[in-house]
Amino acid sequence: MDETALVIFTPSGKRGRVPVGTTVLEAARKLGVDLDSVCGGRGICSKCQVSPGTGSFPKHNVTVAEDALSPWNAVEARYDEKRGLPEGRRLGCQARVQSDVVLDVPPESQVHKQVVRKRAEAREIVMSPAVRLYYVEVEEPDMHEPSGDLERLAAALAEQWSLPGATAGLTVMHGLQPILRKGEWKVTCAVFQSSEGAAPRILKVWPGFHDGPLLGLAVDLGSTTIAGHLCDLASGAVVASSGIMNPQIRFGEDLMSRVSYSMMNAGGADEMTRAVREGMNRLIAELTAEVGAVPRDILDAVLVCNPVMHHLFLGIDPYELGQAPFALATSAAMTLRAPEVSLDLHPEASVYLLPCIAGHVGADAAAVTLSEAPEKSRDLVLVVDVGTNAEIQLGDAAGGVMACSSPTGPAFEGAQISSGQRAAPGAIERVEIDPATKEPRYKVIGSDLWSNEDGFDLAIATTGVTGICGSGIIEMVAEMRMAGILDASGLIGSAEQTGTDRCFPDGRTHSYRVRDADDLGREIVVTNKDIREIQMAKAALYSGARLLMDKRGVDTVDRIVLAGAFGAHISPKHAMILGMIPDCPLDKVSSAGNAAGTGARIALLNREARAEIEATVRDIRKIETAIEPRFQEHFVNASAIPNAVDAFPNLEAIVTLPDVSFNTGGDGEGGRRRRRRG
Amino acid sequence: MDETALVIFTPSGKRGRVPVGTTVLEAARKLGVDLDSVCGGRGICSKCQVSPGTGSFPKHNVTVAEDALSPWNAVEARYDEKRGLPEGRRLGCQARVQSDVVLDVPPESQVHKQVVRKRAEAREIVMSPAVRLYYVEVEEPDMHEPSGDLERLAAALAEQWSLPGATAGLTVMHGLQPILRKGEWKVTCAVFQSSEGAAPRILKVWPGFHDGPLLGLAVDLGSTTIAGHLCDLASGAVVASSGIMNPQIRFGEDLMSRVSYSMMNAGGADEMTRAVREGMNRLIAELTAEVGAVPRDILDAVLVCNPVMHHLFLGIDPYELGQAPFALATSAAMTLRAPEVSLDLHPEASVYLLPCIAGHVGADAAAVTLSEAPEKSRDLVLVVDVGTNAEIQLGDAAGGVMACSSPTGPAFEGAQISSGQRAAPGAIERVEIDPATKEPRYKVIGSDLWSNEDGFDLAIATTGVTGICGSGIIEMVAEMRMAGILDASGLIGSAEQTGTDRCFPDGRTHSYRVRDADDLGREIVVTNKDIREIQMAKAALYSGARLLMDKRGVDTVDRIVLAGAFGAHISPKHAMILGMIPDCPLDKVSSAGNAAGTGARIALLNREARAEIEATVRDIRKIETAIEPRFQEHFVNASAIPNAVDAFPNLEAIVTLPDVSFNTGGDGEGGRRRRRRG
Repeated sequence: MDETALVIFTPSGKRGRVPVGTTVLEAARKLGVDLDSVCGGRGICSKCQVSPGTGSFPKHNVTVAEDALSPWNAVEARYDEKRGLPEGRRLGCQARVQSDVVLDVPPESQVHKQVVRKRAEAREIVMSPAVRLYYVEVEEPDMHEPSGDLERLAAALAEQWSLPGATAGLTVMHGLQPILRKGEWKVTCAVFQSSEGAAPRILKVWPGFHDGPLLGLAVDLGSTTIAGHLCDLASGAVVASSGIMNPQIRFGEDLMSRVSYSMMNAGGADEMTRAVREGMNRLIAELTAEVGAVPRDILDAVLVCNPVMHHLFLGIDPYELGQAPFALATSAAMTLRAPEVSLDLHPEASVYLLPCIAGHVGADAAAVTLSEAPEKSRDLVLVVDVGTNAEIQLGDAAGGVMACSSPTGPAFEGAQISSGQRAAPGAIERVEIDPATKEPRYKVIGSDLWSNEDGFDLAIATTGVTGICGSGIIEMVAEMRMAGILDASGLIGSAEQTGTDRCFPDGRTHSYRVRDADDLGREIVVTNKDIREIQMAKAALYSGARLLMDKRGVDTVDRIVLAGAFGAHISPKHAMILGMIPDCPLDKVSSAGNAAGTGARIALLNREARAEIEATVRDIRKIETAIEPRFQEHFVNASAIPNAVDAFPNLEAIVTLPDVSFNTGGDGEGGRRRRRRG
Repeated sequence: MDETALVIFTPSGKRGRVPVGTTVLEAARKLGVDLDSVCGGRGICSKCQVSPGTGSFPKHNVTVAEDALSPWNAVEARYDEKRGLPEGRRLGCQARVQSDVVLDVPPESQVHKQVVRKRAEAREIVMSPAVRLYYVEVEEPDMHEPSGDLERLAAALAEQWSLPGATAGLTVMHGLQPILRKGEWKVTCAVFQSSEGAAPRILKVWPGFHDGPLLGLAVDLGSTTIAGHLCDLASGAVVASSGIMNPQIRFGEDLMSRVSYSMMNAGGADEMTRAVREGMNRLIAELTAEVGAVPRDILDAVLVCNPVMHHLFLGIDPYELGQAPFALATSAAMTLRAPEVSLDLHPEASVYLLPCIAGHVGADAAAVTLSEAPEKSRDLVLVVDVGTNAEIQLGDAAGGVMACSSPTGPAFEGAQISSGQRAAPGAIERVEIDPATKEPRYKVIGSDLWSNEDGFDLAIATTGVTGICGSGIIEMVAEMRMAGILDASGLIGSAEQTGTDRCFPDGRTHSYRVRDADDLGREIVVTNKDIREIQMAKAALYSGARLLMDKRGVDTVDRIVLAGAFGAHISPKHAMILGMIPDCPLDKVSSAGNAAGTGARIALLNREARAEIEATVRDIRKIETAIEPRFQEHFVNASAIPNAVDAFPNLEAIVTLPDVSFNTGGDGEGGRRRRRRG
C-alpha cells in the first residue's frame, strides 16, 4: 500500500495526492477545493458533506475501492442519528482517505456556489458573502497571562480560521463575556469582511455552535416604490420579497417636486429623510416577520437608488441635484453602519450603497450595470432602465461603457396621459387594433381575456376598465400608428381620414375612443395631447441612446436590454414601432426585469462584486445630455414615429407602417412626409 | 551671483542649498525642517513665520546680507496691516531666498513643538495631534467629468497636502455642499489621522480659511473624581481644567461595591453607564463654557480609567472583574466615535481609550506608564499610583517593565479611619509630633499656619478642624512612630509607656488624642484600629512593590515615583518611615502628580504615543498578586512599621526610630523585637 493516495474532486476536477489518513476536508483545503465548513472540522456543522464514488472512473483513469474512505465513525453516526445525513454522504472532516478516491462536492457544500439565474445573458451570481459564520474554541482567561476575552476570541479566529486582527463593536462587547461562558468557551461568530484578507469585524456571537439562517437585505429604493429582498447569506436564496410605496410620495410624486419641497420648506429634506427611513423600517419589519425573524437578525444590507433618493436617504439636502451642474455631495460607494442611517437592522450590520455614476445616473444605474455587465459583453449592448428618468448605458468589453440619463418624464408610467393610470387591476395593459376595421381589443390587468372574448365583462365586473397603464399606452400608440389612425408626425386622423368614427374632433385635434363610457361614466380615450406626451418621452429616451451611439461611432447596436419593472412589460415590437429604442433584431431585445434590484442582490451575496462595480463605475464614460448639442437635434428627429431620420430596417422587415399623413396645414404635397435615410 | 544659496534653519541646525528664488517654506520642506502651514503657502494663515538673521554667523561660517530674503511683499504687507506681524518676522511662504541666509523657526511656527513639562525626569510631550487643519482649494463640479463634491475635496487634500484617500462621515456630508459654495470652493478641513500615512478622515469643514482653536479633551475617569483637561490641539496648551465627582458614587463608594450593585440589580450596570456618561457630559459642558466654546467644538478625546470604570463607561457589565480570573472583556486600546458612547463632543470626534494592562491594572495605569516612561528609564524606577487600588510598576529600559496591582483599600483616602475624611478644607494634612513632649502640631487644608502658631484659631474659624485626610494620616502614623508613641508592631503605648496623657485606654488598646473636642464636640483621635487599617494598606502597597522586586531579582530600586493626586501630597520621608515604599535615597522619591491625567494628555497631543503605549503595554510583564505565594509572606512582614524583615538603610541614615515595644503579652523580653536583616 502506498503512503499517499490520489484524490479527485468533482465537479471542479481538482486532483492531487495526499498522505493516507488525511481527512477529506484537509485534502480539499490542500488542493484548493471549495468545501464549506463552519465548525472548522469538528463534526458539528455538516457543511463539508461529500458524496464519494466507488468503482471505475475511466474519465479520471482511476478505480475506487469500497474502502477508499475510512469507515463511518462515531461522530458521523451521532450526527446522522441527531439530524440525519443524506444517503451516500460523508462528513468531509471525519472521513479519511485510505486509497484513491473520487469525491463529489454537492452545491450546498460549496461556499462559492452559484445562485441560479434564469437568463442566459445575465452574469452569474457566485456566493461570496461579506458575512460568514465561524465556530471557534477560545482559550480561557489565565491570570498569569492576562488578556481580554475579545483578544482571545480574536486569537482563536486568527489561528483556527486565518482571520487575523478581528475587531468588534461595542454591541458585541456588551454581551461577549456571558456568551463565552455560556458556550463554555466555544462560540459561533458572524464575521464581516469586506474582501478576502480585509480586517475582519465580529458582528455577533452565539454560545456554542450556531447554524441559524444568516440574513441579508437588498433594497431598491425607488422614487415610487421601495422593493426589498431578504436573502439567506449562506445559500443565496431569496427568502422573502416585498415592496411598499415610498412614503416620500406625499411630498411630491416625482423627484423634482421633492427637491422643490426641500427648497421651499425649512427642514423639508430632513422630513423626507425621516419618511424614507421609516418606510424602510416598515419594509424590514414586514420582510423579517414573513420568515419568523426579527430586524436584528439582518447582518448585512445593500441599497441602490437614484441620486436624489440617495441624498435624501443619507440626510443630505438634494438642492444641488436640482440645478446644473447637478453636483453630487458624494459619488463614491459607502459602507455605513445601520444606526448611522437609523435602520432597524442588527446594530453592527453594514449598509453598503453602490456608487453613483453621475448627478442623474445613480447607484440604481450602477446596480443595473452590475446585473447586466455591459462591460463584459462580447456584443455591443444598449441597456435602458425605463422610468421617470431613463438611465441608458451602451458598451461592450472591447470598447468600454458609456452612460447617460434622459428626462423621459412620467408619461411612461401613465402620468400626464388623460386616461393614464398606474399599473393596477382594471388598467389596460395590452392592445391590438384591427388595421381594417380600426376596432381595438385589449386586456386589462387582472384578467387574461381579450375585451372581445366571452366572459370579459364578467371578469372585469369588480374592477371595471379604469384607464391605461404605461406599457398599455405604448402598445396603444404603436397599434394606432400601425392601423393608420396616427401618422408619423403624431397626428390622429379624423373619422373621414381614418374611416372610423372612433376618431372624433376634440378641440383643434382629434381623439380616438377606445371604450365607450360605462355605467360610472368612465370612458377611455386617447387624445392628441396624450400622443404628444408619449412622443416627448420616447424622443427623450431615444435621443439619449442615439447620443451614446454617436459617441461610440455606431448606427446600430447588437442587442438591447430593457431594465426596470416597467421594461419587463413593454412589448419590444411596439417599443420599436414607437421609436423608443433603436432598430435591432426583435429577438435581440430582452427584458432584465428589476435589474437594479438584482444588482443589489449580487452586491449583497458577493463581496467582490462591490469592489468590482466601484472600479467599473470609475471607468464608465459619463455623458451629460443637457450640454450635448446633438441631443436636441436627435430629440427633434425622434419626435416622429418612429423617427424622421434614422432607419429601422429590422422593424421594416416585419412591419409595414401605413404611409399616412393627417396634417391639413401647409406641410406641402398633402401632408406627405419624405423620410430621409441617416 | 550663484544659482543656489545656502539656507540654515535654527534651532534644528538643518542646512542645505536651494535655488535662488525658493520660498522659505519650500526650502523648509525640502530640507525636512518642521515649519507649520495651514493654508499651504497662500499667505493666509501666518503659521510659517520665521525670523531671519543678518550679519555674521561664525558658528555656521556664513555671513547673511541685508537683502538675503526678497523684499517684504504685498501679501505680507496686507497680513501685517490686518492682523499684525511681530517685529522681525517674515511669512515663510512669501519670503524668497536670494542669498545665503540663517532663519530661526520660533516654537509657535513648529508643528512638532515641545510642550513644556516642569519635571526633568518626565518624558517630553512633542506636538503631533491626530487632528489638524488643512486649507484647500477645491475644483468646481464639471458636468463633463461628473464627480461628487466630497471626491473633489478628497482630491484636493491628496494633491495639496499629500493626504490621499480622505473619507468623511455623514455629519460632514450633510453640510458639505453649502459650505463649499459659501467658501467659493476654498475651505478649511479638520482632518483626523491616527498616524502618519493612515487613512485621513475629514471631521469638519469650514468655508474659507478657518483659524479657530482646535479643541481636544483628555479625561482621567476615576472611581471618585472625573478630571478633564481641555487642550488646544495646535499649541498643546491646557485651556481649561476641571473635575467633578463621579456620579456613580451613589451606587457605591468603591469599585467593588459598584460591581456588587450591578450583580444585585437588574439593569444596574446600564444605570451606572448612563450616570458616568452624563457626568462626563456635564464636565464637557463646564470645560467648554469656560473658554466660550461648545461641546461640539471638541474634535478629539482621550480617556483613561481603571478596568471597572472602563467597562462601565463602555456599557460592559463589570461582573467578571469582581472575581478570579478577573477577565477583561477587552484589554486592547479602542478608538470609538463620540456618539457610540453618548458623549456630547463633535459627532465625528474620536474617543481613544488607552489599553488596559490587566484585570486590575487599567488604562489609567497605562497612562501612568506613558507619562513616566519606565520602559525608557536608565535607572530602575518604581512607579506607584496610590489609590484604592495601588498600581505598581517596576522597570527600566534594559530590563523591561513589570506591573501589578495591590488592594490597598480606601484607608489612604481617609476612609475607614475614625477621624478620617477626604482632602477638603478643615482636614489635617501635615503633622509633627515633638519626640520629647509627644505634643502634636498640625496644619489643616485651607491655612498655612501650624496649629501652635498665632492666628491659627482665627484661620480655621469657618472650617474648624474636621478630621485627617489621607496624606495627613500617613504623617500622623509616621510621626507617632518617630515620637515613640507607636511601636514597630503597630501598638499605641499607654500614658505610662509613652509619658503623655494624650494616650488613653480605648477598649482593649490605646488611642492618641490629637485635638480636644471643640465647641461642636469634634475631637480628633487616632485609634489603634486606625493604625491597623493603615498597616494593612501600606503592607499591601509595599508587598506589591516587593513582589515585583523579587521577580526582578533586586532588593533596592534606584528611584521611586509617586503618582496620583494623593501621591503629590505624600511626604516621602513619612511614607518610608511607615514602610509604604521600599528604602531609597529620599531625594530619589518624587511625585508625578496626576500622571494618569498627564498620560491622557500626551496621547491626546501626540498620536504616535498611542501606538507606542499599545506596544509598551503588550511588552509589560503582568504579575497577579492574588496568585503569588510570596505576596502573603511580604504582606505579613510589611505589617510591621516599617518592616519586620527588609532593611531601610537610607532611612536609618537620617531617622532613628525609637526601639519601643508596647506589647504586654508573651512576646518575650519585655516586648523587645529583634529585627532580622533580609
